[in-house]
Amino acid sequence: MAEMTETTPGWLSRDELELTRARMPILYVDAVPVRVDATGVVTHVGLLLRIGSDGTVTRALVSGRVLHQERVRDALLRHLEKDLGPLALPQVPTSPQPFTIAEYFPTQDVTPYHDPRQHAVSLAYVVPVTGDCRPRQDALDLVWFSPEEASSPLVQQEMAGGQGTLLKQALAYVGCLR
Amino acid sequence: MAEMTETTPGWLSRDELELTRARMPILYVDAVPVRVDATGVVTHVGLLLRIGSDGTVTRALVSGRVLHQERVRDALLRHLEKDLGPLALPQVPTSPQPFTIAEYFPTQDVTPYHDPRQHAVSLAYVVPVTGDCRPRQDALDLVWFSPEEASSPLVQQEMAGGQGTLLKQALAYVGCLR
Amino acid sequence: MAEMTETTPGWLSRDELELTRARMPILYVDAVPVRVDATGVVTHVGLLLRIGSDGTVTRALVSGRVLHQERVRDALLRHLEKDLGPLALPQVPTSPQPFTIAEYFPTQDVTPYHDPRQHAVSLAYVVPVTGDCRPRQDALDLVWFSPEEASSPLVQQEMAGGQGTLLKQALAYVGCLR
Amino acid sequence: MAEMTETTPGWLSRDELELTRARMPILYVDAVPVRVDATGVVTHVGLLLRIGSDGTVTRALVSGRVLHQERVRDALLRHLEKDLGPLALPQVPTSPQPFTIAEYFPTQDVTPYHDPRQHAVSLAYVVPVTGDCRPRQDALDLVWFSPEEASSPLVQQEMAGGQGTLLKQALAYVGCLR
Repeated sequence: MAEMTETTPGWLSRDELELTRARMPILYVDAVPVRVDATGVVTHVGLLLRIGSDGTVTRALVSGRVLHQERVRDALLRHLEKDLGPLALPQVPTSPQPFTIAEYFPTQDVTPYHDPRQHAVSLAYVVPVTGDCRPRQDALDLVWFSPEEASSPLVQQEMAGGQGTLLKQALAYVGCLR
Repeated sequence: MAEMTETTPGWLSRDELELTRARMPILYVDAVPVRVDATGVVTHVGLLLRIGSDGTVTRALVSGRVLHQERVRDALLRHLEKDLGPLALPQVPTSPQPFTIAEYFPTQDVTPYHDPRQHAVSLAYVVPVTGDCRPRQDALDLVWFSPEEASSPLVQQEMAGGQGTLLKQALAYVGCLR
Repeated sequence: MAEMTETTPGWLSRDELELTRARMPILYVDAVPVRVDATGVVTHVGLLLRIGSDGTVTRALVSGRVLHQERVRDALLRHLEKDLGPLALPQVPTSPQPFTIAEYFPTQDVTPYHDPRQHAVSLAYVVPVTGDCRPRQDALDLVWFSPEEASSPLVQQEMAGGQGTLLKQALAYVGCLR
Repeated sequence: MAEMTETTPGWLSRDELELTRARMPILYVDAVPVRVDATGVVTHVGLLLRIGSDGTVTRALVSGRVLHQERVRDALLRHLEKDLGPLALPQVPTSPQPFTIAEYFPTQDVTPYHDPRQHAVSLAYVVPVTGDCRPRQDALDLVWFSPEEASSPLVQQEMAGGQGTLLKQALAYVGCLR
């Protein structure tokens, strides 16, 4: 998940965020951006490409914190626009029901999800995007994969913290996991 | 639900359909057309207006049979285009998971749903439409209601066969039932 | 929602909780306890009865915080056992997917849910209980209502913070809202 | 899916069923029987074992037709009792919402699901069973697998018609697909 230290007044300072992370589950959203055909079938899944300081390639979902007094659907839209650019035209789901929740634990193997920084609980959504995606922030690129590629070992091993598993759950939810 | 006697060769004749209706549950889809804002909040619900031969006003969801060898999502798109016109631009859901199923029984009060003609089991979906809706077939008009209006007694009493209940379930699913 | 200031070392002190509540959304679970028949139909909904210091009657769902490093399903079981007693035998859902999320805002009318103390985001589940329920903590009693009673104005007006709406969403989800 | 030619008067004769199968989608239910721990985590998945006339081993979900004027939840319970015996104590879901639908087509590769006999649309549910399972009918045995085993190639290749894919979707839904 992306580092999300917002510094707007009224939100948490970096120190306060660190303190809170040690004491409370932090609420996140995860979005799986998809391209669909006219009948709603998912044809492609979009993954953000990041290069670590040691040169390792990581592929990631759109992910981030829900802020104080922010609705979940506003957080979802904010992170989608931040990561995919202002022209992506995401179709935020009508229902607040996530397809699953991902519980990222600071200790390994409690759940399939892991985040060494914190205990985060993420509401996960599949989001069709119809516009032009231009990754911003710390992502180098957004790459579209077929459902088959997205669930392949090659792509799965480039995803961290259990997001590969979350991606497979999304593919199962839309009926595209073989 | 609309009368759905397709006569294309290979499908059921009217007689065969009548016979089958007396012997098997018939698979249907129900779609709740909605307008949404940029964050996915449902702002309006679209209901078809029909006038009966006795002058009674009925409001209805988009509804119809799934045909042999037709995918559910293709049936959904076909009925949406048939009832809302070719420019409605419906966003067929990515997931085949319906928000509920409506079991229409020929006998009253087995479930909240009733269809004197048959036992129909309908997969129900909420479908955002962004384009221009022009009702065709036997509907006079498509009228947009706010979620509050849609669940009001005035509108509810104009819906038949339990579709008012199904509409309330759709509103609950999208978080718009008060 | 019940006051949930745990004082176990490692968790938040009351002061820290107050501070955090002003800065972050707090993760909650809401459970709707139900009795079911052999085919899974909900026959009754259980509501906690509380009497306020001014004598007002309030009916409430089982509700409470998710703690640091606690899985959502463990939080659900903990709050069910705390509120219904150790012999309630709740059937915690197999899927972590909530039927909806309830976003309780400290300001009114942002969503149907309101909590003057905090911004809480609650994952909501329907939980069949088969055992003997003996409310503990600050609840006086657990009363079972039929689905019709539970959605009636009489019961709805005794529920606070939008939990009446959440209850109706649960009834819609299980097919028992008329 | 099991051969389901019921011959009770009022239902379809074998000839009528064959005729209908060639003309209409047939409504089915699929149930994934599971064992769960106290917190609702799926620990085991139950699969029926069948030996074909040519000696091939097939593992299958509980599956069968919904009859005329039968509620889906009654069909689910009937097939569970038929396949797992009268002491299995299945917990039929409170919500009629299936976790997915499986569209079995007589032609290959339209969907992941295939049934050479017919076009069947199946509503799929995960069903915890707490009692003693004794397979009846044409199944030799019911074998319990861990979620890891159930999604392994060894078990997957013993499942026919796409039921291996449906099983993986069920595991994804309950958060047990890695």
